[in-house]
Amino acid sequence: MLSQQVKDYLQANRQRHLEELLPLLRIASVSSQPACQPACRQCAELLAGQLGQLGFDAQLRPWRDHPLVLARRAADRQGAPTVLLYGHYDVQPPEPLELWQSPPFEPVVREGKIFTRGASDDKGQLFAMLKAVEALQACDRPLPNLIVLLEGEEEIGSPDLERFLTGARRELAADYAIICDSAFFAPGLPSLTYGLRGLVYVEIAMRGPAADLHSGTHGGAAPNPLNAMVALLAALQDAQGRVTLPGFYDAVVPLTLQERQAWRKLPFDPQAYAALLGTQPTGGERGVDLLERRWARPTLDFHGIVGGYQGPGAKTVIPAAVSAKVSCRLVANQQAGQVVKSFRQFVAAHTPPGIRSEIQVLSESLPVLVPLDSPAMAAAAGALYEAFGRKAVFVREGASVPISELFQRILGIQPVLMGFGLPDDNLHSPNEKLELEQYYGGIVAVAAVLSNLAGKDSLAGKRG
Amino acid sequence: MLSQQVKDYLQANRQRHLEELLPLLRIASVSSQPACQPACRQCAELLAGQLGQLGFDAQLRPWRDHPLVLARRAADRQGAPTVLLYGHYDVQPPEPLELWQSPPFEPVVREGKIFTRGASDDKGQLFAMLKAVEALQACDRPLPNLIVLLEGEEEIGSPDLERFLTGARRELAADYAIICDSAFFAPGLPSLTYGLRGLVYVEIAMRGPAADLHSGTHGGAAPNPLNAMVALLAALQDAQGRVTLPGFYDAVVPLTLQERQAWRKLPFDPQAYAALLGTQPTGGERGVDLLERRWARPTLDFHGIVGGYQGPGAKTVIPAAVSAKVSCRLVANQQAGQVVKSFRQFVAAHTPPGIRSEIQVLSESLPVLVPLDSPAMAAAAGALYEAFGRKAVFVREGASVPISELFQRILGIQPVLMGFGLPDDNLHSPNEKLELEQYYGGIVAVAAVLSNLAGKDSLAGKRG
Repeated sequence: MLSQQVKDYLQANRQRHLEELLPLLRIASVSSQPACQPACRQCAELLAGQLGQLGFDAQLRPWRDHPLVLARRAADRQGAPTVLLYGHYDVQPPEPLELWQSPPFEPVVREGKIFTRGASDDKGQLFAMLKAVEALQACDRPLPNLIVLLEGEEEIGSPDLERFLTGARRELAADYAIICDSAFFAPGLPSLTYGLRGLVYVEIAMRGPAADLHSGTHGGAAPNPLNAMVALLAALQDAQGRVTLPGFYDAVVPLTLQERQAWRKLPFDPQAYAALLGTQPTGGERGVDLLERRWARPTLDFHGIVGGYQGPGAKTVIPAAVSAKVSCRLVANQQAGQVVKSFRQFVAAHTPPGIRSEIQVLSESLPVLVPLDSPAMAAAAGALYEAFGRKAVFVREGASVPISELFQRILGIQPVLMGFGLPDDNLHSPNEKLELEQYYGGIVAVAAVLSNLAGKDSLAGKRG
Repeated sequence: MLSQQVKDYLQANRQRHLEELLPLLRIASVSSQPACQPACRQCAELLAGQLGQLGFDAQLRPWRDHPLVLARRAADRQGAPTVLLYGHYDVQPPEPLELWQSPPFEPVVREGKIFTRGASDDKGQLFAMLKAVEALQACDRPLPNLIVLLEGEEEIGSPDLERFLTGARRELAADYAIICDSAFFAPGLPSLTYGLRGLVYVEIAMRGPAADLHSGTHGGAAPNPLNAMVALLAALQDAQGRVTLPGFYDAVVPLTLQERQAWRKLPFDPQAYAALLGTQPTGGERGVDLLERRWARPTLDFHGIVGGYQGPGAKTVIPAAVSAKVSCRLVANQQAGQVVKSFRQFVAAHTPPGIRSEIQVLSESLPVLVPLDSPAMAAAAGALYEAFGRKAVFVREGASVPISELFQRILGIQPVLMGFGLPDDNLHSPNEKLELEQYYGGIVAVAAVLSNLAGKDSLAGKRG
């Protein structure tokens, strides 16, 4: 429970908390654009400065193109647990600029929403964590040991972050991890994301003739690697939309009755979803519920096939080589390494005479499935109730959130995803916004969860 | 039989016949390069001038970018047959220039071969036809009625030539058609090409979601048109490499025992062919002889799949739309229109819910299979024996020669393909050449076949 004093403090400081967010939003920290490198550094420095003012030992860690911000603050109490807070200060490119109603890096409040690139993803959410710490400190409330990790390359896929975490494993040892970089399932409905899908993304290459050949002169004799590729890919999925890799589904954790019932109560409208897609949601496995297919079942998707002729009109070419980009989303407890191994065997077994094949793994991440009944989840659910006055729903997400999987796999911490954006925040689109009530509520929620966790004992002794 | 007088004349005029070819070879008539438009016109004018000197009524017919040369010359004898001679004066682009040993439009004779772009394909061959007419005329030998059609857009696929031939059907009515635009099967082995494959080339488009989607968020729900396309394409061919379109093989004319035996005697080395391909010739139908697969069996080849992500690395996209370029080579007596109809039905039947499909026909041409025992074939075989001293072999060709199919379909004439290039003439590559003995022999051969045909009666009365 958050003390009335902290609640009053937060209520009284709303305007200042908004104003202090603006300088951060004005910095064009687009990690994918090399010209923004100074802006990214400026962002990291600003945040390290603010953390310093809150009593953190804050450092910039140079890492690839944009520095990581790493800050620690010890609790007063011996034996207090350690909480790792994560956010990212880099943002998506603002383009296409002409679709913005106001310039993307000039934050403007209209109708209770603040519009800028990065408002919801993720500057507003990460700044709320800092303001929550400020409030507890100002009101002399106990805090846990805190580690803050702010990343500057999330929007370019956190390249090489795994290596950083592996190297900093001891430094980052924590009991709990809180990630504010997600959204409510629906307006007014606070949400805790307890499941994320993993990913195996491979590129399969096939070579046939030494050079592109004329399909008239050599058709029927020269083995066509695109024909072979199509046969291989088609064999990966059956008529029911199930993946045919041997043992693929063996480790899949089935949906519990409880989950199934809870999901049926979510305000999810299949009609509206079909309208969003622009077609019927007929992908994936036949006869499986829609949300289950998106959240709790693995998938197979082909993303593109390179090679041959792709210009306008006809060219009668037998390509020398082609490659296909293929991925599977994974769910708990599928092992990415095992799926990669199955892919390798499958490709070798489906390479016909006259064709050579190879497979390259482009991306590999584990699914995340956090227990619903953990103390951290209970603390987060209580905090969201305090902040937003409504019981949180437990949801999953079909995409991967790489940092969650890395926290789980490298640091051994089950992350709590308690973001407070809304589904219509236009995260990667023009006119990104964050609703002010979500921002203020988010500060309350983080303050509450930190208060809740501060009273627990460190699990450090129990960790291996 | 060619008279000794004509033979002597041709022997005596070899040097001049070579020198007169050079101005034609020097013109860079690259039909695909707009800057060469004046050169193409110059070529056409030069040829019309030469035909005029041979007593032809020669005209330039403006057609698309490069004019057609159309010339007629009446026989002295009433009731003489009409022979249509075809060649093309345009050439392939000479690039890459740095690989030429001498400039591509400066003809040079080295070791009995003349090197220039277009020497063999097709300027040398068409000019031989003109010199044959000259010789018969100079020696007062009877000629049939002659129509010469020289095209300037063969190397860009004879676009719209069908419309010209349809409009000029009466004007082009002939008993026989001779095409000199092919090669011997092997050095020293004169060849008559009696079969060509036809073609149906379609582009199949599939649309799923209204926009590209994130495969994490929507994978398993959004129907992926690339997955659907792969399933459709794979279903077009079975594990034996046979096309599964219903009735696809029904009209295929089986190879005769005679053909099979004759082909086994051809100097064809499967090892050398595999070395040329750079892999084993495992394409097409299992258990069918290699030359039969290349010449006498229909095929299915995929040429490229457009859509989704084709750049380097991974992108987790469910594409909104994809399209596939697909063709079948056809053999006699398959009907292109019937195959197109089967494709349409197959695509409609293999379009899953949530996906829309359409099919566009990019190219359609009929196979050609000329009887081996026709008077024209006998005349051509006799002429080749006279010219080259060796019995001609009858071969087929896996590719389409559009003009042959058009002569057959639009004009109702079975064409005789009696070209005299060699397989290593580098037709579309640097250092194209024509061997002088092939050029001189070609003139003899055309003179002989025209002599042979001049004595026959016109079939005009028998034509519908």
